[in-house]
Amino acid sequence: MQLAILLFDRFTALDAVGPYDTLSRLPGVEAVFVGEHTGPYRNDTGSLGLVADAALEEVTAPDILVVPGGPGQTAQMADGPLHEWIRAVDATTTWTTSVCTGSLILGAAGLLRGRRATSHWLALEQLPALGAEPTGERVVFDGKYVTAAGVSSGIDMGLALAGRIAGDAAAQMIQLGIEYDPQPPYDAGSPDKAPAEVTAALRERSRFLLAGER
Amino acid sequence: MQLAILLFDRFTALDAVGPYDTLSRLPGVEAVFVGEHTGPYRNDTGSLGLVADAALEEVTAPDILVVPGGPGQTAQMADGPLHEWIRAVDATTTWTTSVCTGSLILGAAGLLRGRRATSHWLALEQLPALGAEPTGERVVFDGKYVTAAGVSSGIDMGLALAGRIAGDAAAQMIQLGIEYDPQPPYDAGSPDKAPAEVTAALRERSRFLLAGER
Repeated sequence: MQLAILLFDRFTALDAVGPYDTLSRLPGVEAVFVGEHTGPYRNDTGSLGLVADAALEEVTAPDILVVPGGPGQTAQMADGPLHEWIRAVDATTTWTTSVCTGSLILGAAGLLRGRRATSHWLALEQLPALGAEPTGERVVFDGKYVTAAGVSSGIDMGLALAGRIAGDAAAQMIQLGIEYDPQPPYDAGSPDKAPAEVTAALRERSRFLLAGER
Repeated sequence: MQLAILLFDRFTALDAVGPYDTLSRLPGVEAVFVGEHTGPYRNDTGSLGLVADAALEEVTAPDILVVPGGPGQTAQMADGPLHEWIRAVDATTTWTTSVCTGSLILGAAGLLRGRRATSHWLALEQLPALGAEPTGERVVFDGKYVTAAGVSSGIDMGLALAGRIAGDAAAQMIQLGIEYDPQPPYDAGSPDKAPAEVTAALRERSRFLLAGER
């Protein structure tokens, strides 16, 4: 079973690594990081490089596709070789997935029309223009399309998908292996839970934060 | 404020990326991935490469040090240039931290003697031999030494440390930015919560899972 994780410039690292470090631990999974070119891609803040080991044309039939998000997503919205590749591999995937604003890329490629989907909370309002119906759930399954909310939600998606693929015990073993017993020091992980002034400030600063331009 | 994240062969990616993608979003933080050599380091399963942009000798005074864990940790336990570097930079850090079995490296370098600390639950029993006192907490602060439990706990550590460094609102803004409102599909993230047979199976298989040898 091949797991392909897409990389592009200015992706958000945790978007990619959350699903990767859960799903890649399923028995029999071979994971590959893939991009338009091979070699390192720099993340949203520019301070981390993840290596794409394969170019798009080398990955023709992944079973699972993961598309991360991040501010670089905005440069991946135009039709072209990347969208063509996404549509081509989607024709035979078992699961086509995204984290954060990766759903906007899937949507722009035409894969979410008429489907329920999610994205980073700051980007939810962009889904309808791509034909998708935004939901307030953290992980959304609609057929073989699985979209997760912002950044860290890819861990929850990875575990949920691991359960669908290999059963509850296999997924629980991965959860225990990565000791995912979350104890956030604050309860500020969604706009309705965070203090109103924090949510307002992040909305205001989101252009900078999401763009990694501090 | 410089944040240095150590890389070594067969580290666990989420151990490094969790603290990175929280702490690096603090205003004024400059993050750098550092290793004995520059260039890519491969992770525990070998399917992901993260790039070290700086060699040890180029990073002489980080304010925050993060040491991840992973099966490659066992090769980092002998005294030598890496331990010398860790001790040297620790002399001037504001915070010296680890995730997962990274605490065993800090301990082997002599930094946790007489201190409360934690590690991956499967590795807790190795702490006393390094002079540290294991605790059952997910994130342990002892002076400037902060150790986190297995893999995913580095996100909780990053947020807790962000709060100490820049205040609650700054940390909450990061939590909201990465939409960290965990909703694991199972409650199996610690050995006392997971089904007994899952915990037993993972103990049995841990040599393989932790070593990435499936």
